[in-house]
Amino acid sequence: MTGVTVGGETIALDNGLRLDTLQMYDYDIRDLKKVNGDDLIRLDVIPEANRLRNVRAQIVSHGHLDHIGAIPFTKPKAPILSTPYPIEIVRREYRGGDLYGVEFNEEFSISKRTKVEFIRVTHSIPETSLVLLKTDEGNVVYACDYKLDDYCNLEKTDYRKVRRTGRDGVKLLIVESTRVNVAGKTPPETVVRSKLEDVLHFIEGGLMVATTFSSHIERIQTILDEVEKVGRTPLILGHSMMNNIELAERFGYLELPPNAKVCGDPKRINQALGEVMKKRDEYFVLTTGHQAEPQSVLVRMLENNFRFRFQKGDSLLFCANVIPVPLNIAYRSVLESKLQARGVRIFRDIHVSGHASKEDHRKLLRMLQPEHVLPCHGSIEQRSGWVALASEEGYELNRNIHLINNGQTTSI
Amino acid sequence: MTGVTVGGETIALDNGLRLDTLQMYDYDIRDLKKVNGDDLIRLDVIPEANRLRNVRAQIVSHGHLDHIGAIPFTKPKAPILSTPYPIEIVRREYRGGDLYGVEFNEEFSISKRTKVEFIRVTHSIPETSLVLLKTDEGNVVYACDYKLDDYCNLEKTDYRKVRRTGRDGVKLLIVESTRVNVAGKTPPETVVRSKLEDVLHFIEGGLMVATTFSSHIERIQTILDEVEKVGRTPLILGHSMMNNIELAERFGYLELPPNAKVCGDPKRINQALGEVMKKRDEYFVLTTGHQAEPQSVLVRMLENNFRFRFQKGDSLLFCANVIPVPLNIAYRSVLESKLQARGVRIFRDIHVSGHASKEDHRKLLRMLQPEHVLPCHGSIEQRSGWVALASEEGYELNRNIHLINNGQTTSI
Amino acid sequence: MTGVTVGGETIALDNGLRLDTLQMYDYDIRDLKKVNGDDLIRLDVIPEANRLRNVRAQIVSHGHLDHIGAIPFTKPKAPILSTPYPIEIVRREYRGGDLYGVEFNEEFSISKRTKVEFIRVTHSIPETSLVLLKTDEGNVVYACDYKLDDYCNLEKTDYRKVRRTGRDGVKLLIVESTRVNVAGKTPPETVVRSKLEDVLHFIEGGLMVATTFSSHIERIQTILDEVEKVGRTPLILGHSMMNNIELAERFGYLELPPNAKVCGDPKRINQALGEVMKKRDEYFVLTTGHQAEPQSVLVRMLENNFRFRFQKGDSLLFCANVIPVPLNIAYRSVLESKLQARGVRIFRDIHVSGHASKEDHRKLLRMLQPEHVLPCHGSIEQRSGWVALASEEGYELNRNIHLINNGQTTSI
Amino acid sequence: MTGVTVGGETIALDNGLRLDTLQMYDYDIRDLKKVNGDDLIRLDVIPEANRLRNVRAQIVSHGHLDHIGAIPFTKPKAPILSTPYPIEIVRREYRGGDLYGVEFNEEFSISKRTKVEFIRVTHSIPETSLVLLKTDEGNVVYACDYKLDDYCNLEKTDYRKVRRTGRDGVKLLIVESTRVNVAGKTPPETVVRSKLEDVLHFIEGGLMVATTFSSHIERIQTILDEVEKVGRTPLILGHSMMNNIELAERFGYLELPPNAKVCGDPKRINQALGEVMKKRDEYFVLTTGHQAEPQSVLVRMLENNFRFRFQKGDSLLFCANVIPVPLNIAYRSVLESKLQARGVRIFRDIHVSGHASKEDHRKLLRMLQPEHVLPCHGSIEQRSGWVALASEEGYELNRNIHLINNGQTTSI
Repeated sequence: MTGVTVGGETIALDNGLRLDTLQMYDYDIRDLKKVNGDDLIRLDVIPEANRLRNVRAQIVSHGHLDHIGAIPFTKPKAPILSTPYPIEIVRREYRGGDLYGVEFNEEFSISKRTKVEFIRVTHSIPETSLVLLKTDEGNVVYACDYKLDDYCNLEKTDYRKVRRTGRDGVKLLIVESTRVNVAGKTPPETVVRSKLEDVLHFIEGGLMVATTFSSHIERIQTILDEVEKVGRTPLILGHSMMNNIELAERFGYLELPPNAKVCGDPKRINQALGEVMKKRDEYFVLTTGHQAEPQSVLVRMLENNFRFRFQKGDSLLFCANVIPVPLNIAYRSVLESKLQARGVRIFRDIHVSGHASKEDHRKLLRMLQPEHVLPCHGSIEQRSGWVALASEEGYELNRNIHLINNGQTTSI
Repeated sequence: MTGVTVGGETIALDNGLRLDTLQMYDYDIRDLKKVNGDDLIRLDVIPEANRLRNVRAQIVSHGHLDHIGAIPFTKPKAPILSTPYPIEIVRREYRGGDLYGVEFNEEFSISKRTKVEFIRVTHSIPETSLVLLKTDEGNVVYACDYKLDDYCNLEKTDYRKVRRTGRDGVKLLIVESTRVNVAGKTPPETVVRSKLEDVLHFIEGGLMVATTFSSHIERIQTILDEVEKVGRTPLILGHSMMNNIELAERFGYLELPPNAKVCGDPKRINQALGEVMKKRDEYFVLTTGHQAEPQSVLVRMLENNFRFRFQKGDSLLFCANVIPVPLNIAYRSVLESKLQARGVRIFRDIHVSGHASKEDHRKLLRMLQPEHVLPCHGSIEQRSGWVALASEEGYELNRNIHLINNGQTTSI
Repeated sequence: MTGVTVGGETIALDNGLRLDTLQMYDYDIRDLKKVNGDDLIRLDVIPEANRLRNVRAQIVSHGHLDHIGAIPFTKPKAPILSTPYPIEIVRREYRGGDLYGVEFNEEFSISKRTKVEFIRVTHSIPETSLVLLKTDEGNVVYACDYKLDDYCNLEKTDYRKVRRTGRDGVKLLIVESTRVNVAGKTPPETVVRSKLEDVLHFIEGGLMVATTFSSHIERIQTILDEVEKVGRTPLILGHSMMNNIELAERFGYLELPPNAKVCGDPKRINQALGEVMKKRDEYFVLTTGHQAEPQSVLVRMLENNFRFRFQKGDSLLFCANVIPVPLNIAYRSVLESKLQARGVRIFRDIHVSGHASKEDHRKLLRMLQPEHVLPCHGSIEQRSGWVALASEEGYELNRNIHLINNGQTTSI
Repeated sequence: MTGVTVGGETIALDNGLRLDTLQMYDYDIRDLKKVNGDDLIRLDVIPEANRLRNVRAQIVSHGHLDHIGAIPFTKPKAPILSTPYPIEIVRREYRGGDLYGVEFNEEFSISKRTKVEFIRVTHSIPETSLVLLKTDEGNVVYACDYKLDDYCNLEKTDYRKVRRTGRDGVKLLIVESTRVNVAGKTPPETVVRSKLEDVLHFIEGGLMVATTFSSHIERIQTILDEVEKVGRTPLILGHSMMNNIELAERFGYLELPPNAKVCGDPKRINQALGEVMKKRDEYFVLTTGHQAEPQSVLVRMLENNFRFRFQKGDSLLFCANVIPVPLNIAYRSVLESKLQARGVRIFRDIHVSGHASKEDHRKLLRMLQPEHVLPCHGSIEQRSGWVALASEEGYELNRNIHLINNGQTTSI
């Protein structure tokens, strides 16, 4: 969560959960609502939202949990603004808010001093925005979580608007740092397509199970498209898959093939998997669980919670990578060991990242030409990578590129 | 180099240089001919060929230096057999031999006891073979260096012939191990296409320089195809590029776009780079040097040996990875540091391996159903990976999957 | 578990649990007795003991769980033989057996054909043996788990006996492989003393907590000796610590300082920690939990299960390393993160391994001069390291150094 | 090189070479004097010294090349100040300067405004100082390169003076960052002693060769002490060893055993190695070359430049680690491969670092209680580690802990 204060008014940008910390303390997200909010603040799981004074709007850049998940706990009183799709995701988690869906490129007045516009950009969930705040003291762009994927099959980054914003002048760019230390640019979704097409034609028999993020609609579409080519029936299993797919279909971001089946509740999953056991060569299961989340359908399939057993010759396609913290790495490693003990073949890394690499960031920087840069969303090592990049482009540390830690403020 | 002995007659399979050892002792391959052969044997750079008795044929599976490079030193007296393209590569290095170009799937009699056939398979150089030896005591398949890339734009693995060979019975499979410990299958060349198309459209100005193996004709074609789409003029620089391209064009494995220029000698390279300095946005340079080989054109471009300077905003596309031994890693790291010091942007990993991963190997094993497996071309860790894979498929160590070290023999 | 069969009689060597697999399936060792033995075999947690026919003795080389832990499940009918200290450890776990404590260097007749002797060697638990089997067909030495630490403060390797055994002739050496790929020799316990002395004098205030294996009596003595020098009161907490200390004191392997307190049950631990809260500068807590085992006292201290809170300025000394599998690495990383969140300072790596490195193994090989070597206790990569070492010493793979997988047999 | 400017006067602190960059461009330090100074600045090998205006003193904290090596190139006009031992090292490299040897704890007036004192601290070369600048605007402590080794056999950190300095008030601490991200404290030299004693008693025959830094007098003493216990004759080979040993003996920092022989020039080295070849079990060779520097005696021994051959059964003791940049890692790896090819046994890591770890730094911070902290000597990741540490101790980024890049200035 980031606050931008101009003339005594504050705009809050995003309001998320720290998922790695949550996991360290063994909290299940679904049980989280029973936990005391102060405890969550103390454990650094949710932001200390009331440190921000006179908040006039809670803006949401996109619908990932680490950007919206704290809203049900911090219960913002200010209006919550985003484009329509993320607003629906917030609504699912938090019914009490004052929610506004704003169209891309539509100027929305927050107060006399401040207006906001949402600029379309690619990421790994539909309707991600570069947030443009227009204030008395200049424009602020908030670019927290994006990549520049010109081969995205879902949306296109609005380069014209980005360049125009740069020409109009940007006082400050607040920007994510996750992969700024990775050379080159983040590969496009077409790489996933190429890998997937290859693997699907290569595998000759047995059940195929793929796992990815339920919110990654573009990836789900990629998978379903490629499955259609090999003629298997797609079964999409699990509540979060079902919810995200329903929403994406409603907004026109996803088109299911006619033979696809979506099962949310355990009983229907059980039934579907019973069918699979009879004709495993004809089905393709898509579900969550690539980080071995204990409640995921994949883990429950493996633990024999359904009328289903993995068999020698089945295949598991990991269409998402784990977030590389030690617990995830370990859980994933155990998951793979158990699958291999059943004779399941593993196909990893059918995935590309949703985060900008060094050259994506350089392009954004050149398009926006901001007076100041404030890297965020990353360890200090990652944010330091932004200092190196900006230095190559003529910025200077502490003059116009700034490093601040969580909980700190700076004035420019 | 592997020898297969049946009834007192030996067939030699490949005859290569250990490139990593060479490099450790600072030998330049071009000066190697001055070095004493016995010294090269002592240093473990070339095989001790005369340990093989009564050699009736020297077979070559493909034209990489680690498979043919020792031929000029060991000077085989037996006929040298391969398909026509690798035979031409051998001829360039060694004029003295008794060379035979044999067509794919044509049975060639080596002796009364032994016949050979070459089966087409994909790898990272044209005309790579699975070598099928038909002997009195059963058939032997030698699969040293291959991948199963069904999206290769150059050749197709002859699956029909492979399966028929399996049905006819295979006594022994001798097979490479480089990547058998890597899960899944090796990605296809289409992944390189997707990445390259993305990067070429992404970069807005400055000179683009790409580097890859001069023998990797398929990759060169991929690069030239994508360059054509963005309208730059390709300049292909260096002797080894020129020689390989000439050969590949002659055999119809490569089609240069009409505006491509190929320059082999330093004077012409210098001239061409002079042109580049004037209109760097219009050119695309393709050359060798991704392992920072000191004689490569790329390194000489960087060391200012030509009428050329890298400039801020130029881009370097690494369309090949280094062989991961410490010296290569270090030299590559120094190369990148020097490029970055000039302001050159680095795009890495526009590459897929030419070696089979675990699932490619499993498929070959299932198609061939050999009685025995002998992993080779790899460290003992890598060869042990083959033991693990074969055990999953019902083989048992020391019974029908065998581990032997360099210099050892085994009987089956 | 290893079986040596001579003339139709089998000697079983060790009989342990696979701890990493156990952990993967979330079993608590203390609940294990409720689990079905066949399930444990299927999961590869305990050996399939009844594959060995006509077992005449169950020999135990030392008291670690991965060498004795399966005895309560496989319930050997043959007599269980070891030196007195490990026999007492087995007795704690399994009361039903026919247990014999044999003194070091005493020849014990198992049958007409076979005698056994135990030769003292250093490791990380008292009374570890090189097991010498004297059979009709020659002598077998079983060296599974040892190091050569000539600065051990507890015991000395019986080099004279080892060399004499070598001179008498050894047909087969069965030997562990855990660290054969590590160059040099394993450092001695004096390195731990030097580090510990330094750290204990360096820390100026706050509570000190050290954690190590409860079975590592030598390490416990090292720690208590150094704590005595800085004048703090040692508190030793936890059941397994108490049990091991009692046994070691009874056998004269450990001498507690007069002011040391040992508390096994939660109530007494709670009381002792209450005292610590009042004068934390005066105490030194020694306990288990360096792998973040959920039931360990350290983890319960951290989870506030006692009348105790960690405070800023406390120190945690890790006097043992985790076994480097992903789950352990992850749990340890979470443990450290939680400690650091409380302001606890971390001192890692006050530890040396208990396993022989490459040069320890070379020395054993040279002393014993066995006709054959069979590496065990290690992945195939680790066992392959033994092949490399033995090759340096003139052995040859498949002739007199052998690689076999779990479940396999070989004849020599 | 760091400049501290108060009231228009600047004090320059250290003036070193970037050794990793030098190596990247293949410069030999001994040939460096032929290279143009501007080229060295452009390559970022020496600092751009004339950016500092009105320099009143060039202070040297200790005698390592990365702290003094640029002095012969930048030729400071201001007086060069240090304690007597480093001053002699500077004199060896640069005869033209105005050199002053100042005793520890003696206040030396640089100008009306500024005085300097040198405070003794432990590191890996004799007479390393914490530099205390007393200025009109407060005291500055420069702590660039130190560790807190209370078991150093050469010198003791002057804790009393450090604490008194803290009580007198410190405006700014400029401090190195090399290992601030390493938990715990840096182990003491006694750890090296324990390892060395163990290894020397363990090895039974063959020549022993140890390699370390020629400037690391304490390590050389440790080695010679332990060699004396096993009764071998120490041969110390090479010019830099000889020069450093002469200086250290003159200052009383080193005492050679009576039977030690020191040989500087190639002819005498050759003679001595001739003797070694006759009785290799009786000698112990100490020399440089652990980073495989091509001119080192070790590398020349291996390349057969002397009347000497390594033999199977010889041992190489690495009593220093490589600086972990890719080139060093690669060269060291090649060195070890070549030694192993000759049958030489490798003993690594008989070494402890000379740089403070996180807890050493915390102790210094607590003793000095500076108003501001400026981390230097390290990558931005390493300096960021100082931000994390200082934050734990109540400092705040950009308020009283500052990150600046090379070439930048900040005011406090």
